[in-house]
Amino acid sequence: MGALRLPALTSIFTSSSSVRSSPAIFPLKHHLRLPVRRPFSAQSTTEKVVAPELGDGKGKVVDKDKDRVITPRSQDFNAWYLDVIANAELADYGPVRGTMVIRPYGYAIWEAIQEYMNVKFKETGHSNMYFPQFIPYSFIEKEASHVEGFSPELALVTVGGGKELEEKLVVRPTSETIVNHMFTQWIHSYRDLPLMINQWANVTRWEMRTKPFIRTLEFLWQEGHTAHATAEEAEEEAMQMIDVYTKFAYEQAAIPVIAGRKSRVETFAGASTTYTIEAMMGDRKALQAGTSHNLGQNFSRAFGTQFTDENGQRQHVWQTSWAISTRFVGGIIMTHGDDAGLLLPPRLAPVQVIIIPIWKKDNEKAGVLTASSSVKETLQAAGIKVKIDDSDQRTPGWKFNYYEMKGVPLRIEIGPRDVSSGTLVISRRDIPGKQGKVFGISMEPSALVAYVKDKLNEVQSSLLERATTFRDSNIVDVSSYDELKEAIAQGKWARGPWSAGDEEESKVKEETGATIRCFPFEQPEGPKKCLMTGNSADEVAIFAKSY
Amino acid sequence: MGALRLPALTSIFTSSSSVRSSPAIFPLKHHLRLPVRRPFSAQSTTEKVVAPELGDGKGKVVDKDKDRVITPRSQDFNAWYLDVIANAELADYGPVRGTMVIRPYGYAIWEAIQEYMNVKFKETGHSNMYFPQFIPYSFIEKEASHVEGFSPELALVTVGGGKELEEKLVVRPTSETIVNHMFTQWIHSYRDLPLMINQWANVTRWEMRTKPFIRTLEFLWQEGHTAHATAEEAEEEAMQMIDVYTKFAYEQAAIPVIAGRKSRVETFAGASTTYTIEAMMGDRKALQAGTSHNLGQNFSRAFGTQFTDENGQRQHVWQTSWAISTRFVGGIIMTHGDDAGLLLPPRLAPVQVIIIPIWKKDNEKAGVLTASSSVKETLQAAGIKVKIDDSDQRTPGWKFNYYEMKGVPLRIEIGPRDVSSGTLVISRRDIPGKQGKVFGISMEPSALVAYVKDKLNEVQSSLLERATTFRDSNIVDVSSYDELKEAIAQGKWARGPWSAGDEEESKVKEETGATIRCFPFEQPEGPKKCLMTGNSADEVAIFAKSY
Repeated sequence: MGALRLPALTSIFTSSSSVRSSPAIFPLKHHLRLPVRRPFSAQSTTEKVVAPELGDGKGKVVDKDKDRVITPRSQDFNAWYLDVIANAELADYGPVRGTMVIRPYGYAIWEAIQEYMNVKFKETGHSNMYFPQFIPYSFIEKEASHVEGFSPELALVTVGGGKELEEKLVVRPTSETIVNHMFTQWIHSYRDLPLMINQWANVTRWEMRTKPFIRTLEFLWQEGHTAHATAEEAEEEAMQMIDVYTKFAYEQAAIPVIAGRKSRVETFAGASTTYTIEAMMGDRKALQAGTSHNLGQNFSRAFGTQFTDENGQRQHVWQTSWAISTRFVGGIIMTHGDDAGLLLPPRLAPVQVIIIPIWKKDNEKAGVLTASSSVKETLQAAGIKVKIDDSDQRTPGWKFNYYEMKGVPLRIEIGPRDVSSGTLVISRRDIPGKQGKVFGISMEPSALVAYVKDKLNEVQSSLLERATTFRDSNIVDVSSYDELKEAIAQGKWARGPWSAGDEEESKVKEETGATIRCFPFEQPEGPKKCLMTGNSADEVAIFAKSY
Repeated sequence: MGALRLPALTSIFTSSSSVRSSPAIFPLKHHLRLPVRRPFSAQSTTEKVVAPELGDGKGKVVDKDKDRVITPRSQDFNAWYLDVIANAELADYGPVRGTMVIRPYGYAIWEAIQEYMNVKFKETGHSNMYFPQFIPYSFIEKEASHVEGFSPELALVTVGGGKELEEKLVVRPTSETIVNHMFTQWIHSYRDLPLMINQWANVTRWEMRTKPFIRTLEFLWQEGHTAHATAEEAEEEAMQMIDVYTKFAYEQAAIPVIAGRKSRVETFAGASTTYTIEAMMGDRKALQAGTSHNLGQNFSRAFGTQFTDENGQRQHVWQTSWAISTRFVGGIIMTHGDDAGLLLPPRLAPVQVIIIPIWKKDNEKAGVLTASSSVKETLQAAGIKVKIDDSDQRTPGWKFNYYEMKGVPLRIEIGPRDVSSGTLVISRRDIPGKQGKVFGISMEPSALVAYVKDKLNEVQSSLLERATTFRDSNIVDVSSYDELKEAIAQGKWARGPWSAGDEEESKVKEETGATIRCFPFEQPEGPKKCLMTGNSADEVAIFAKSY
């Protein structure tokens, strides 16, 4: 057996040390019975997590974790979420409270997001670049509502190279201030506009209540920043980018977000208008999954970012900024995951197809492995992300459960009888049991590739469809405050006409825990009366509890 | 003329505002006469750089920068370097002393490095992931030589969320400590090894003397970290990764680095052995361009990173770490650049071919532009990075100089006569004037693509060849300390047998300013006597002044 490594998997599942009890003495039951670690269940940050020890090195397998399971989603959504993250090895806590280590499998999802976004950003005329993360404290203070919004969340560097600094430095919570400082040096005339850039970076916000991916002290994101000659162009750009995010959510992540405008209360600190995409998680709480801000001239006035227009007049530029972050990975987990664990949309899955070779007798092994490798090569050559698990440390049944828990969209099984008939078996992760399993699929390359691509597309669409049905069955149209309260009390989203003020909005939040998630772009036609005041209203708003 | 934008270029040269005087009133002379900004010449960090104003918006072009030039390289290498960075818009100073903003054109070179490296890292079995950048101060203190090496350079976060922190946090200068903290949680038995990961991240070192790309307070890099069961495997890995870097330097960056082992004095703080690639810059100073460390068990002992081996014994893992950074971009500039500006190796150039359409009469314009677009599409479809500059704001001569300064390897000119004959003109950036210019090249797609690819390869090889010749003519074999001193005094590198101690090494540094760059892997055969002591020596060392 050699060094007992799983070479086919090391590149993506580098440290799969935590899941390794032998199915032989650890029979699979109805619900998932993989030994699990729960570093996220207890918010202890320095305590070392005791992961299951597997053996004494002499072949005896010691199972210390027989009773560990992934908490059923319906029982405790939060515990389920943390269990999935730990067991699928997406992330771990860092040593500093509220920080997160993104493990290879979780990071690969983020890389898939980056890959897609980078193309879209370049297609829409943006260039990547990089700004320093240390911002002089005085910069943050320049835009009044910006400092008000961010000052409670700042991490400050006060010592550098062994000396107390004269001016303390902010570790960027976002970069509008330093971007404007630089823009003043690059923008002179209308010929320099539009200036459209993006950076991939880490940002720091000193959050008190943290949750892996969803809200961490440091997170990864992209932040786009643009400057334009006119208000109209800035508005167009802000809308263009929320559209890019919306399309991404639907088409890649299979998340049917609702795009719209934030209320004044919920607008980004420093923006004129904030556009948002709001996603409904499996527990029906809303997740703000991406935002695009029309900053107007707020920052350009604060920093003096001006240009000479075609008539020789000095004017302040009009700006936007927009971002999505590693939070989106949390959104994917909480939208699609189920009791068996993670469920990844094929277009973002680090592994789209897992091949499990099955043999009993030694004389069957070579044939099965050869066929499996050849299937792998066929699929790989067609651009499909495919892996084989040919380890003989685990039974096929154990592997089935493991890759279901990892959310791999399709599983291929190849046994001795398949080899002789030139066929294989494919199972869909999104349809459990026999219903999702098809036998006798031809191994003939062109037929197989077409079939697999088709199935991946089907899984992709079916995830979106399922999430859309779930979303729509959990949004209630309300026409009064009582109806709103009832919908929220039932854990649903409420959609109703709204033209009341900030004060009434705060009252809803205090009394129900729900906030206005957005005024959706898609509005019902006809006259409307504000659910709170009875006055005429132009728009409906969506209210929900949120992350 | 519309809005006077250059749509074909905006995606890569987003803010090319600084270079825009009209050649009509700004004739080209012998040396480069582009108006230049020199933000780097003065280390003023908050002062706004006054960039050339272009016009009064009514068509009059005002040239305020007639006398600005790129300092000739031979005259003042440092001034030349800073001028190139400013004029080619590679980077700017950030507002905090020693920080750098990497502008789109500079960042695109870094992206090309990333793209290549990411593939190699994955091919060699590594997975990307992400560790938090805040490290508890106590971690840094655990490995004795590590804290000694890094403590003078640390940036410390002492305030978070408005409160003084109980334990101050280090902004990562490198991640061995936090990596080991996490490895202790993921590594249990020999089955978990090797554990091989990489992260792309920003790091902070509070440097006193900074220089764009070469040494900045914050920089971007990748850091690989691996853990192995045996010393031999760790050594193999450290060597494998220095080989990856060496291959990259030669084949992609056209930099003939010398790979070797660092002396004990120059070894990374915490490593057992450091391997390095050393590059000779245009001023003959050495640049450490990448390092790979065999960490032995230094960190695993400090952090208790242990595994149970096949015999059930607990053992400390053997580790490596390895990194290249945005410093490499500085190395490319200083290896290949010349008096005309930047010169980029084709394989890392954001734009490999610039097409300049040339017309005089209005009735020629359409034909020339159509032919240019079609050539662009042909080359693009073949995977060549190509741009057109069809702006009518600038004369062709101005554009020639501009893209030479930007280091674009090939220029294609297409005029009305070319259109009628179905040919075009290609000029090589690395061979100035008529010698590098070929007329009458067929526009026929397959012939053209083959020709351009060929030329790009030729430029690539010729850069490497030129740099190799330069390097070899500036390394002197020495057999005594006097010869060493003479070579160093001449600005050259000295190579000679060395078996003396740390003290003698320090003496050389004090007296000559040169350090041991490495004991190269390639060693001359035969018996050797230490240049300093006359004792027998196993190896030659290379001494040089360095960045």
